[in-house]
Amino acid sequence: MIVDLLKPEFDELIEAKDWVALKDILNDVPAVDVAKLLEELEAEVAIVIFRLLKKQKAADVFTFLSSGKGMELLDMFTAQQLSDVMSNLEPDERVSLMEELPGNLTQRVMNSMEVEDRKQVQKLLGYPEESVGRLMTPRYVKVRRDWTIQKGMNNIRKFGQSAETVNVIYVVDRDEHLIDDLRLNQLILADPEAPISSLMDESFEALSAFDDQEDAVKMLSKYDRVAMPVVDSDGILVGIVTVDDIIDVAEEETTEDMQLMAGMDVLDDYYSQTTIFEMIKKRIGWLAFLFVGQLFTTTAMGAYESVIANAVFLSLFIPMIISTGGNSGTQAATLIIRALSTDDIDMNEWLKVLGRELLSGLMLGLIMAVIGFFVIIGWGYMTSDTLTQELILSAVVVGLSLIGVVLWGNLSGSMLPFALSKMGLDPAVTSAPFVSTLSDVTGIIIYFSIAIALLEGIVL
Amino acid sequence: MIVDLLKPEFDELIEAKDWVALKDILNDVPAVDVAKLLEELEAEVAIVIFRLLKKQKAADVFTFLSSGKGMELLDMFTAQQLSDVMSNLEPDERVSLMEELPGNLTQRVMNSMEVEDRKQVQKLLGYPEESVGRLMTPRYVKVRRDWTIQKGMNNIRKFGQSAETVNVIYVVDRDEHLIDDLRLNQLILADPEAPISSLMDESFEALSAFDDQEDAVKMLSKYDRVAMPVVDSDGILVGIVTVDDIIDVAEEETTEDMQLMAGMDVLDDYYSQTTIFEMIKKRIGWLAFLFVGQLFTTTAMGAYESVIANAVFLSLFIPMIISTGGNSGTQAATLIIRALSTDDIDMNEWLKVLGRELLSGLMLGLIMAVIGFFVIIGWGYMTSDTLTQELILSAVVVGLSLIGVVLWGNLSGSMLPFALSKMGLDPAVTSAPFVSTLSDVTGIIIYFSIAIALLEGIVL
Repeated sequence: MIVDLLKPEFDELIEAKDWVALKDILNDVPAVDVAKLLEELEAEVAIVIFRLLKKQKAADVFTFLSSGKGMELLDMFTAQQLSDVMSNLEPDERVSLMEELPGNLTQRVMNSMEVEDRKQVQKLLGYPEESVGRLMTPRYVKVRRDWTIQKGMNNIRKFGQSAETVNVIYVVDRDEHLIDDLRLNQLILADPEAPISSLMDESFEALSAFDDQEDAVKMLSKYDRVAMPVVDSDGILVGIVTVDDIIDVAEEETTEDMQLMAGMDVLDDYYSQTTIFEMIKKRIGWLAFLFVGQLFTTTAMGAYESVIANAVFLSLFIPMIISTGGNSGTQAATLIIRALSTDDIDMNEWLKVLGRELLSGLMLGLIMAVIGFFVIIGWGYMTSDTLTQELILSAVVVGLSLIGVVLWGNLSGSMLPFALSKMGLDPAVTSAPFVSTLSDVTGIIIYFSIAIALLEGIVL
Repeated sequence: MIVDLLKPEFDELIEAKDWVALKDILNDVPAVDVAKLLEELEAEVAIVIFRLLKKQKAADVFTFLSSGKGMELLDMFTAQQLSDVMSNLEPDERVSLMEELPGNLTQRVMNSMEVEDRKQVQKLLGYPEESVGRLMTPRYVKVRRDWTIQKGMNNIRKFGQSAETVNVIYVVDRDEHLIDDLRLNQLILADPEAPISSLMDESFEALSAFDDQEDAVKMLSKYDRVAMPVVDSDGILVGIVTVDDIIDVAEEETTEDMQLMAGMDVLDDYYSQTTIFEMIKKRIGWLAFLFVGQLFTTTAMGAYESVIANAVFLSLFIPMIISTGGNSGTQAATLIIRALSTDDIDMNEWLKVLGRELLSGLMLGLIMAVIGFFVIIGWGYMTSDTLTQELILSAVVVGLSLIGVVLWGNLSGSMLPFALSKMGLDPAVTSAPFVSTLSDVTGIIIYFSIAIALLEGIVL
């Protein structure tokens, strides 16, 4: 990484207050690396360094700062700096900044914006959170079907500077309805005198401004595009979504899924940017909820208290039985959640999945039963050097129980994501801890039912 | 989705054998949707439909087919069709196809390729699997610093048709060393008579052909690019990696991470494309390994067999104690694995993380202790209507144990990813089942140690 190489030289120049040399270096370093350098400096020093950057570069660097550092600097900006940074941000970046701002800063920042920009921000903020409308930028280049390609290219030269991408050009009619999309290289490679319409195939894919951002990720990945047009409910072109914004959305969605799947609430920021108190708040809810859920397991075990009292050795195998059920459930839940979220399987395929997981759960359970039986026998023989009746009976009970718990874990783990999704919840709520807790109580019931059936009259 | 809308019409046309109308429709439908339609047809019908597509479109459709369907069609192609499809695939797509082919097909396909293409494939296959070299395409446009921009644009017009992207243009010296990258709009917006060098800033980021594909994902997302150049160890430009390939790699990497984190081996294909036997093979290993690991828990419990015999009620709380430890560990492990894989934290920050997780684990444990105490008291009172001495003692033991198990779960869950990574393993191997199994044995020891210390002389 450039940033690690430059760090010492950079520190030296700050020490020496050699701003001229710093300015030279900084404008050659990518914005993301400058942000990383600023991140480690005191706000008072960082703001001086920030002033050395060109306006556009300063805005770029700003978008790469962590929100904590960003707020700190924002608060220290002069009115002019504020206006420079805000007017050089992309509209979608401006919106996501506005969302994070504390109340007192919002007003100051809004005032620093030009009227046009302020209108744009207010409009974008009108779309629901996590919607494509919040992600899109109105900075695209459009052309009309009756123009010549030459005229189209002139338009690109004129508006291209302020567009977020010129790789895709949009064709609209008189009422601004989107009618086609063209790639820049199509225009470059064609005869300049031909009309735009000669390049058109009238086939295009567009997103709705009200679609979920997740849909944008899927569409861009499915159609291999660098940008996708966004239309309102009347088919009017209102913006574009570019692939670089999408990569970030996809990464965030994945992180959210993983946190849900770990049995906790979704963090509002990166791990490194989350305070310990915030972290505890996000984790304690599920921990406590699942603990209370375990009362069912405790109650179930309470029903078998006399069985345990008569055959204490049975209790030794409880953790291995219930954990194996939980493991099988965790595997199944993760497979299904991921397959659903990558559109590998559809919601209406649940019956097919049920059939598959019934079969594979049964087979996994049978294999585990055989393994379990011999492992228990082997372990017992190694630890006590004899094969007691207790040991052999335990091995049989454990083996038979494993068929039940693995099968049940598999079924509940694979069906829960469908059920939660049907209820309008994120299927990723089927966390490993949640599935395990559910399998624990069933595991206890399966295990003791089999034990009683088999051992009644022998040791019970 | 277009595909669902067209399906009935499409089926009708096939039924009527109206190939002319089909051909018209098919060439307007995006390749990904044509692939989806073909996927559901018998191979004999699919191959007829396939013949209706234009050469380039046919190749595009082919890349979107599942590997099973792809092989099926490949096997039925005539030599001419084979050669058409192969020569219209991107080099990176050709390589990934070659890798999947069974031996008998490989030879046939290799023979169908033109000499140049065959050389390229063999060269790309020389890079390690999962390396950037396997992902890159040699189809880019390059220019020289002393050319005029006009000459550069002519070169783009000439080679642009066969390039995978013309959005970024690469500047190389006489020895093919990469010296800069330019965006196409820079060229378009500049004076045609100016030299290429007037646009250059001599600052560019490049990947090495031997880098891991994960690095490519990180770089493209970090620098917000649509394409990244790839150089060999001498700095010679050997290819480019484009963002659309990267989205697929990122998605695959995430799926792999999630499967590891669920305690199973990584699937070779999508869930829907994996046979039940394959699935069982990928899952049984970890299930059995973790089951055997649970022998430690069983052995630990065996050491406390006489304690359980004297105070059976203690055994009722075992599942809730060990599961809470596992849940805390799962949360911590997931947070750290994700933070490491998104570069939010570095490997060398492990000590900082340890400090954080020590503190948050302790606080979570204390809160859980209070909750646990009252939950047990409440539950006991509800189920038996009196507060027995046993119940109060249990509540105290459970409460105190929770501090220990939550803290331990948190520490092991957060440190294991670092440890595994240090050992050269994927940190995602710290699966929820793995962490839970580790916490189970510790949970048992903590719980019974506290029980003995507190209850000795009272009920033991």
